[in-house]
Amino acid sequence: MASCHPWGPGATLRHPGFWKMLTVAVFMALLGCLQAQEHQGHVSIILLGATGDLAKKYLWQGLFQLYLDEAGKGHSFSFHGSALTTTEKGQEFMAKVLESLSCPKDVAPPRCAELKDQFQQLSQYRHLKTSEDYLALNKDIEARVQREGLWEAGRIFYFSVPPFAYADIARNINSSCRPGPGAWLRVVLEKPFGHDLLSAQQLATELGSFFQEEEMYRVDHYLGKQAVAQILPFRDQNRKFLDGLWNRHYVERVEIIMKETVDAEGRTSFYEKYGVIRDVLQNHLTEILTLVAMELPHNVSSWEAVLQHKLQAFQALRGLQKGSAVLGQYQAYSEQVRRELQKPDSFHSLTPTFAGILAHMDNLRWEGVPFILMSGKALDERVGYVRILFKNRAYCAQSEKHWVTDQSQCLPRQIIFYIGHGELGSPAVLVSRNLFRPSLPSKSWKEVEGQPGLRLFGRPLSDYYVYSPVREQDAYSILISHIFHRRKGSFITTENLLASWVFWTPLLDSLVHEVPRIYPGGAENGHLLDFEFSGNQLSFSQQQLEQLVPGPGSVPKPSDFQVLRAKYRESPLISAWPEELIAKLANDIEATAVQAVRRFGKFHLALSGGSSPIDLFQQLAMGHYGFPWAHTHLWLVDERCVPLWDPESNFQGLQAHLLQHVRVPYYNIHPMPVHLHQRLCAEEDQGAQIYAEEISALVTNSSFDLVLLGMGPDGHTASLFPQSPTGLDGEQLVVLTKSPFRPYDRMSLSLPLINRARKVAVLVMGRMKREITTLVSRVGYEPKKWPISGVLPASGQLVWYMDYEAFLG
Amino acid sequence: MASCHPWGPGATLRHPGFWKMLTVAVFMALLGCLQAQEHQGHVSIILLGATGDLAKKYLWQGLFQLYLDEAGKGHSFSFHGSALTTTEKGQEFMAKVLESLSCPKDVAPPRCAELKDQFQQLSQYRHLKTSEDYLALNKDIEARVQREGLWEAGRIFYFSVPPFAYADIARNINSSCRPGPGAWLRVVLEKPFGHDLLSAQQLATELGSFFQEEEMYRVDHYLGKQAVAQILPFRDQNRKFLDGLWNRHYVERVEIIMKETVDAEGRTSFYEKYGVIRDVLQNHLTEILTLVAMELPHNVSSWEAVLQHKLQAFQALRGLQKGSAVLGQYQAYSEQVRRELQKPDSFHSLTPTFAGILAHMDNLRWEGVPFILMSGKALDERVGYVRILFKNRAYCAQSEKHWVTDQSQCLPRQIIFYIGHGELGSPAVLVSRNLFRPSLPSKSWKEVEGQPGLRLFGRPLSDYYVYSPVREQDAYSILISHIFHRRKGSFITTENLLASWVFWTPLLDSLVHEVPRIYPGGAENGHLLDFEFSGNQLSFSQQQLEQLVPGPGSVPKPSDFQVLRAKYRESPLISAWPEELIAKLANDIEATAVQAVRRFGKFHLALSGGSSPIDLFQQLAMGHYGFPWAHTHLWLVDERCVPLWDPESNFQGLQAHLLQHVRVPYYNIHPMPVHLHQRLCAEEDQGAQIYAEEISALVTNSSFDLVLLGMGPDGHTASLFPQSPTGLDGEQLVVLTKSPFRPYDRMSLSLPLINRARKVAVLVMGRMKREITTLVSRVGYEPKKWPISGVLPASGQLVWYMDYEAFLG
Repeated sequence: MASCHPWGPGATLRHPGFWKMLTVAVFMALLGCLQAQEHQGHVSIILLGATGDLAKKYLWQGLFQLYLDEAGKGHSFSFHGSALTTTEKGQEFMAKVLESLSCPKDVAPPRCAELKDQFQQLSQYRHLKTSEDYLALNKDIEARVQREGLWEAGRIFYFSVPPFAYADIARNINSSCRPGPGAWLRVVLEKPFGHDLLSAQQLATELGSFFQEEEMYRVDHYLGKQAVAQILPFRDQNRKFLDGLWNRHYVERVEIIMKETVDAEGRTSFYEKYGVIRDVLQNHLTEILTLVAMELPHNVSSWEAVLQHKLQAFQALRGLQKGSAVLGQYQAYSEQVRRELQKPDSFHSLTPTFAGILAHMDNLRWEGVPFILMSGKALDERVGYVRILFKNRAYCAQSEKHWVTDQSQCLPRQIIFYIGHGELGSPAVLVSRNLFRPSLPSKSWKEVEGQPGLRLFGRPLSDYYVYSPVREQDAYSILISHIFHRRKGSFITTENLLASWVFWTPLLDSLVHEVPRIYPGGAENGHLLDFEFSGNQLSFSQQQLEQLVPGPGSVPKPSDFQVLRAKYRESPLISAWPEELIAKLANDIEATAVQAVRRFGKFHLALSGGSSPIDLFQQLAMGHYGFPWAHTHLWLVDERCVPLWDPESNFQGLQAHLLQHVRVPYYNIHPMPVHLHQRLCAEEDQGAQIYAEEISALVTNSSFDLVLLGMGPDGHTASLFPQSPTGLDGEQLVVLTKSPFRPYDRMSLSLPLINRARKVAVLVMGRMKREITTLVSRVGYEPKKWPISGVLPASGQLVWYMDYEAFLG
Repeated sequence: MASCHPWGPGATLRHPGFWKMLTVAVFMALLGCLQAQEHQGHVSIILLGATGDLAKKYLWQGLFQLYLDEAGKGHSFSFHGSALTTTEKGQEFMAKVLESLSCPKDVAPPRCAELKDQFQQLSQYRHLKTSEDYLALNKDIEARVQREGLWEAGRIFYFSVPPFAYADIARNINSSCRPGPGAWLRVVLEKPFGHDLLSAQQLATELGSFFQEEEMYRVDHYLGKQAVAQILPFRDQNRKFLDGLWNRHYVERVEIIMKETVDAEGRTSFYEKYGVIRDVLQNHLTEILTLVAMELPHNVSSWEAVLQHKLQAFQALRGLQKGSAVLGQYQAYSEQVRRELQKPDSFHSLTPTFAGILAHMDNLRWEGVPFILMSGKALDERVGYVRILFKNRAYCAQSEKHWVTDQSQCLPRQIIFYIGHGELGSPAVLVSRNLFRPSLPSKSWKEVEGQPGLRLFGRPLSDYYVYSPVREQDAYSILISHIFHRRKGSFITTENLLASWVFWTPLLDSLVHEVPRIYPGGAENGHLLDFEFSGNQLSFSQQQLEQLVPGPGSVPKPSDFQVLRAKYRESPLISAWPEELIAKLANDIEATAVQAVRRFGKFHLALSGGSSPIDLFQQLAMGHYGFPWAHTHLWLVDERCVPLWDPESNFQGLQAHLLQHVRVPYYNIHPMPVHLHQRLCAEEDQGAQIYAEEISALVTNSSFDLVLLGMGPDGHTASLFPQSPTGLDGEQLVVLTKSPFRPYDRMSLSLPLINRARKVAVLVMGRMKREITTLVSRVGYEPKKWPISGVLPASGQLVWYMDYEAFLG
């Protein structure tokens, strides 16, 4: 046994005290039995915040587990607990924690006691505060390594401290505690990693000034949970079944859920600043989302590939809007905050303790598949899961009573990564029996029988293949092992972190003043927190009967008003609140289109750019099923002289908000030729003439069925600005013009062409237009001063659509 | 009573026989009580085939019902049963049938006897065969009308005869039995209305030579079934709930089902010619489909609007393909046919007795929503229904055990038009309680309580609002009333009929040699007939274990072979069965695309037209989620000089099979400018030069990342044909060429441009290419003779993709 001496020959001889020598010798002998022959260097692990809750609950146990797993494999270890606590108190605390460590179930008590004793020998507490303290720590480690004839493999600093302490510690480590050449440094960071994108960037920049990216391990402990950690291996090992299924054609929805029964009592000082989205969704649930949604790397054990694919998944996430979320707050929360944070009786918190989020991926694999993220406190049960529900694509010819679980394709088909708790009480992977028998690593996962009578996700447990871990392991133990083995795929890189904040911050900003729905808590919540989606919009299923937290002053709803019909410049005026106005305009356009197609077989529609029509485009795209798009020709009223793919291009707006959602044939789409011969609006390229020719050729009498215009605060319309030398009169149908605003160069239909239309609709919206609306109501035909005043269809109809803000101010 | 004399003054006085006069007088007195004051003329109803089964079972009863409903409202009636049977036998038969007529439940037996007696008085049998018979009938009607001082309102001829008899009868009616001016003629036709499009057209043309469209009433008795007839009124009366729901965003699927337990025994002589699709799907289920899918007319009681919207629904139906159907045949069927039709023992019928069909509507309302049509004989239950299942768009925050039926949006939401039979045993309309409380006409529909314990469509009956007709009515009674009232919306117009055959005939043709899956019949069918869909493809869920009917000689499957790698013209050759070859090529293109985008930020792909690439386009569109479409530029290798919207255009194929399914930005799509200044490929328009310029500007070094070519049987590639004076050499990048085939004028990339590509793939498929493949394998560089031999990328790679038929013959 002594022949496999781990610390090199003579290690014990240089030791000063006999008692200590003896202890070490005994330990060495024991360790020798655990260790492999090859010596792989010494690793020092410094746990900062060693006396904190997290350390006490998970980290010391995780380090002990690391020691149990690795000590026999060639590395030697020392464990340094540190904190601001005085040495004496710290030592006392540590002694207590180390005494309470537990061994795996299969280790007999006497053996466990031995192992704990060994671990205690290698562990010490030290007060760590000033830069001198860090220098001293460094010196001690170096001295020990030298003294014991070791070579240093690396150091792990585990930051189990509040984020405000990060900078100081990081600076001290960087300046005084880096190991020598050839040895690695790893720093482990615990959330929160910022409060929003800006603060996360600041924190990242600060940390980046002390550490290399590869030195940092940001922990999201959900990535250490066994069911979560199994997502990628499961997808990999069941490729032959999943390759065809893991996409929008087969997946109905993905639910990523973490429900808690506890509330935030006692933690409101933290919670009040963060809320449920920052506490759970931005990190844990988002990480899970990327594991489910990412393109599966060829080699899932390459963490570089995993991280890269994860980033790609972030890029595919569609931006969240205010309407992507529903928020709740359990009824007792505000009172708890008032009590714990000494707030006045009038104080009402807006911090959400419940959130449901609808996310979408804009890629071909997932387009249209809802990803539902939900978490909350004070709910009816404690449970976490990821549920992939597959579409029912079958029709079962036999009556239901004859359906057989593993044969009927009409019974629900789902895969569930059951993170823990809930009715099952342990991590598990569940696969519907009518799907396939999954393959899981048999060393670590075993098939289990369900408890009779138990139902999960709408089906008896016996409907599933159920696999559970052979040995339940704590997330921190797993992650500490990953840190030691440099498996970076289970940690949050800076890029990953910032990508997540890029995704969440706009939503968080938009929700700052949102009043959460108050819920009683527990089973009493009933259906109060159920939510549903329509397109990108999420809303609670039930109307709220009363507002328990007073919201901002009630604003009149569009439905409180009628559409107003009147005259403006002697033409019909339709006025309403924005939503109704757009709905009315969309209906009118559809009616015109249907009529034109019925009479002429086609509909020529010329559309303006700008922001007002975007809502109109969306309305037309999503709600008008009878619109004859296949027979509609789309023309542009005006265009900026930028390439079509420029975000400033009017055509881009049309493409993003309308064309993408409807089926207009390619050759019925007529963007303005502002980009010819790789030049923009060059006179010589005759783009305006080309467009005019195209119009003359396709549109009978060059008379559009409908032209949609806007009106600028200066009275411009199309891209015809006051005093324009072209386009206000004359023979030209299409002209190049100048705008007083960037981009200056424009192409536009001319007034004479516009006035040939069968129908012209002018859409004017927003308070900004109030003044010009009043002015233009009073002027006559003065297109040089106010081009809009020149809109007078010769034989067609002119209709004004103005919202109340533009019309009434 | 006598004062409200229905047939005008003096009617009885002119009557010859006293006895008869007395009878008539008594009858008149009775009738007077039923009739309204106003006199609306006399209606003669002639039932042709009066002694047949249908007449006996439904039609006489329907006519009696008409009499009961209408006789009091001012019309007078006479009913003429006719057939080829001799007068004596016919009279005898009719007497029996009339005796067996029944009154509605609320009519007391003595009153019923009176009413039947009245009806019998007005009904007579007559032998109707020769033209003289028809002349005599006409004369009799005229005489009677005159004799009784009536004026004639109209005549209804109900054809309850086999279709072969139609023409003769129609001719006779047209020539001898039309009523005089001012009176209407209605002829009622019973299915089958042809066997396919051609025969239906012939029949329609023939009938059209005798009758006006408005005179014809084609019966589909399903349109008279109460639950079916309720579809449009239900949609109309519940608009406020359904307006937002009745579309692809909310509807998960529509099932239109008619299951029978009986088999075809005794009817095989009919059935063997028709099969289940012609017997049930082409008519009944298709009619129901249009009622569910049509845009709802503003006024559903306008039958003109209903018929027009129905036709529009037909136009939106996507064409069916062989893969849209699954077919079955109950095991005993072939034996029944052999027995009944005296076929030899070796005879196996291919007639389907079960069919499942997947239909789609190509319009914005229904795009992507599966419409499942299914019918079969010898199934486990007799039931008919239309089921609209809504998507689950909710997440329920509470655990399932707390869900409340009418509040949880997570319980299934469905609307069912229950046609009849099944566990419910009667017609009904069911609406899930978590959807809305529907509005139904309270006079004719009543809300009913469910039988406890009964489950329908996955839920207890108590989960639904259930409405049943106040009075159950037979379909024929309802339809006969509609005929009388000229409600044409419940009948099949010629246009409607032909539209249905246009839809069904290609499928029926493609299935002629299809071997149906044999099923045992009844509950034993198990999951054998369950089917499922993937895209447009339908297939049985279970693999068939053995083929009970011997199919055509077994063909080797693609999976029996490996992809073959070899050399062809000194370049790599990849050969496989078509499916595998396309899969391999699609994978290779994706890999090339991913690499190009990674290196250069974009991917320039030039694609050929023709039929071979269509499968490739579909493969790329449906299966390649990682394809970087947003960064891909699509170019055409060649184009026919036709407008882009011409079905012959190569661009059309690309649009239909690829662009429609992926998101390539508009400005990354580069169709060839074959259509400029409203001319096709005019030299002066310099289309070729414009395309060359565009390529030079956007594609670095004019070197495409990938060019996909084909090879013609004459050795042409792109649109470069043998002996072409342009494009085979020289400086031009894009050229105008001539094809030996229509359309003759083409535009094509030149060989020099093709040879600049980084990669060129040549796809060659099909037996037709065998000869040229062999020939080209032996020739050198002779582009004048065989343009394909000039494909030699200067520094790029050339790969041949050939299926086994092209390569091995």
